[in-house]
Amino acid sequence: MTLYHVLGAKQFNRESLDEIMQLSKEMEEVEKSGGSDIFNNKIMTTLFFEPSTRTRLSFEAAMSRLGGKVIGTENANQFSSAIKGETLEDTIQVVSNYCDVIVIRHTDIGAANRAAESATVPILNAGDGAGEHPTQALLDLFTIQKELGTVDDISIAMVGDLTYGRTVHSLAYLLANYRNIKIYFTAPENVQIPTYVKNYLEENNVSYEESDDFQAVAKKVDVIYQTRIQKERFSSLEEYQMASGRFIIDNQLLEQLQEHSIIMHPLPRAGEIKPEIDNDKRAAYFRQARNGLFVRMALLKKCLKADS
Amino acid sequence: MTLYHVLGAKQFNRESLDEIMQLSKEMEEVEKSGGSDIFNNKIMTTLFFEPSTRTRLSFEAAMSRLGGKVIGTENANQFSSAIKGETLEDTIQVVSNYCDVIVIRHTDIGAANRAAESATVPILNAGDGAGEHPTQALLDLFTIQKELGTVDDISIAMVGDLTYGRTVHSLAYLLANYRNIKIYFTAPENVQIPTYVKNYLEENNVSYEESDDFQAVAKKVDVIYQTRIQKERFSSLEEYQMASGRFIIDNQLLEQLQEHSIIMHPLPRAGEIKPEIDNDKRAAYFRQARNGLFVRMALLKKCLKADS
Amino acid sequence: MTLYHVLGAKQFNRESLDEIMQLSKEMEEVEKSGGSDIFNNKIMTTLFFEPSTRTRLSFEAAMSRLGGKVIGTENANQFSSAIKGETLEDTIQVVSNYCDVIVIRHTDIGAANRAAESATVPILNAGDGAGEHPTQALLDLFTIQKELGTVDDISIAMVGDLTYGRTVHSLAYLLANYRNIKIYFTAPENVQIPTYVKNYLEENNVSYEESDDFQAVAKKVDVIYQTRIQKERFSSLEEYQMASGRFIIDNQLLEQLQEHSIIMHPLPRAGEIKPEIDNDKRAAYFRQARNGLFVRMALLKKCLKADS
Repeated sequence: MTLYHVLGAKQFNRESLDEIMQLSKEMEEVEKSGGSDIFNNKIMTTLFFEPSTRTRLSFEAAMSRLGGKVIGTENANQFSSAIKGETLEDTIQVVSNYCDVIVIRHTDIGAANRAAESATVPILNAGDGAGEHPTQALLDLFTIQKELGTVDDISIAMVGDLTYGRTVHSLAYLLANYRNIKIYFTAPENVQIPTYVKNYLEENNVSYEESDDFQAVAKKVDVIYQTRIQKERFSSLEEYQMASGRFIIDNQLLEQLQEHSIIMHPLPRAGEIKPEIDNDKRAAYFRQARNGLFVRMALLKKCLKADS
Repeated sequence: MTLYHVLGAKQFNRESLDEIMQLSKEMEEVEKSGGSDIFNNKIMTTLFFEPSTRTRLSFEAAMSRLGGKVIGTENANQFSSAIKGETLEDTIQVVSNYCDVIVIRHTDIGAANRAAESATVPILNAGDGAGEHPTQALLDLFTIQKELGTVDDISIAMVGDLTYGRTVHSLAYLLANYRNIKIYFTAPENVQIPTYVKNYLEENNVSYEESDDFQAVAKKVDVIYQTRIQKERFSSLEEYQMASGRFIIDNQLLEQLQEHSIIMHPLPRAGEIKPEIDNDKRAAYFRQARNGLFVRMALLKKCLKADS
Repeated sequence: MTLYHVLGAKQFNRESLDEIMQLSKEMEEVEKSGGSDIFNNKIMTTLFFEPSTRTRLSFEAAMSRLGGKVIGTENANQFSSAIKGETLEDTIQVVSNYCDVIVIRHTDIGAANRAAESATVPILNAGDGAGEHPTQALLDLFTIQKELGTVDDISIAMVGDLTYGRTVHSLAYLLANYRNIKIYFTAPENVQIPTYVKNYLEENNVSYEESDDFQAVAKKVDVIYQTRIQKERFSSLEEYQMASGRFIIDNQLLEQLQEHSIIMHPLPRAGEIKPEIDNDKRAAYFRQARNGLFVRMALLKKCLKADS
């Protein structure tokens, strides 16, 4: 019996990604037909040491749509034994006894990996600090495939806080499994993509460029992957406003985009995509959020089956 | 497909109220016979931006008694994307994908209406700031009907903080659908009923009086609807104690009441009804709390059926 | 109809303990075979006024493994009507209407007993301040029986904070129902076992000794029941470190123990058992945590059956 953990984007290859994409498509059909009860006697625990709406709720919905039960805590830091000084390893070892799969979000890079070492049930990483957010990256991938019909041969602009944005890192790693990808890392200089991500892409022969000219990049790509830029990365509010102001998607920018392109965002947004564009067909971010449900159903199916 | 939202008391007319009262009665029978599993594959999300025990738990119990599943957050302000600056509209649009109905409590007047505009599933307003609390008003109505056999031809004293008390406003609006109602707004002057509520009653030919003489009013009404008066409405503690002291229900007041009358309270209480009267048959407030379960089952049944 | 509450360890006798141990064994089999759906239409409410991971999650898992549904709050103090000044009695009376059993953890000694007086459903005490923690004591007992084959004729060292440690008190009361027990209360003097516990043991002819020499006691007992010593019990950090340092279980101490002995801990631990001993077969604390699931399933079975 091998446990099927989802810890980071690098664990996947083209074959396993194809399988998850296929399974996600099947799960979309299951959901549309009213759900299933295959996990009627299974329990998922959500351990969230950081706030979350969509990730936690979409995991809980995914488990519920498959008939399973959910227990957990929405603020493990404050309400659990963590405040009594318990190690993550002990918490995981204990909680493993009470469920069939654990979904964990934690403030520390590598927390999900540490959890997996202590766990006797599968671990799904729902974000580990500035580390990774692999289930988000998988739903991003599923969205690209659904919207554009393929992930091979696409160009994508990753925009915003590329230094700390864990979803961007995870997605870049996944894209390294596809043919003829071109990534434009588009950001103010002080929050550009880290060297270790670039190194990984080079080792895997993925073509990329760095730019801070969003206008120029936006018009030539198939996918714009927008993310939030956070104030606290800048030394002054003025600097922040100057920097972030050049990376906003509004009606004006929309006119520059190609007709077939799509705009994605892991959400929540805070101003970097204006609501005025929400009704344009290229605005894919709410469809993307919905896809999270199907991908997480697929991951639960894989890890609970592998476990049984 | 039209969504059946419950947003405010004014959306109901006599016919729709009769239907909900009837359905609530049926749900009471369903509950007594051990529940049902009609919503076996349905998911309810509770989004509570304000604390609550009875409203949230009774909604979750209602969904559970009908076989459904529940996901949600008990402090959306603190633990969800709201702290990252996400708008309510975005939150609702995303969460709509993960469930079949959303129950929302929010600090802002009109929040439920805004939610309904973004939602693709039914919205149930569980309280929007100093605005409305329509499901509470419906259970109040159901309680009056059960206890007195009718809502027509009754007199009711609404007592306590009538300015900010959202349950009182919602109930007053509902009562406008019944024949020969007499409302006594009984409160210290500084927390009397707002003009916009009085205007609505006048437009609908509902007879009312304002008073601050609780003793005089109490002995002539069929229903006493007691609510909390909050300290922070008064400029000094002394003023508060003087004012609130005259609106307390204890054994002494109980002796003045008619035999057939009932005492209601949306709960929680904080001293304005003494526990010494709890065992009197006229003390209806715990039965009232219990009725919340049946009314919320009825509302879930209506909105999940209308939606399918 | 009599409600089956679990409020304190003193409510049990040898016969009822034998029955719970037997039922827990059966529940372990039920869990291993994938659970049951006997409580498909039952609802358990968890009301936690104090933080908890393992107790709450294991109760919720227990209910889920038996097919039941769970509602509740993980921080009743902050998010419920308690912040509006509602009494525990009112909360319990209301919540009783929404479920079939209530699990409560509270900061006040005697809270569970007060809850039971207002409740119309069974109450399970999940810890009442420095009072009792009877379900923990029952799972401790079940662990001793499973690990050693008997609870009669054993010697046990209770170690750590014996003054405030509610699990220790509850377990001592339970052990009074067994033959030929010898308890070594092993602690720094300022946190030794209270007189009222000793009085109870004397009335029930249980043999005990007090000691602060952990090394000497450890090598002669069948069971070491280790607990945390909290800094705030000591007048200075230095005093705390000196005291607690002599009560640590590490590889060195492990060598002194008998081969058949077991090490237990209610968890979470904070340094008083070194992870270096986790893989020794005598380290029983994680198996103990797992047993909590079976014992809580057994208690739910007893109280929900008695109630129906």
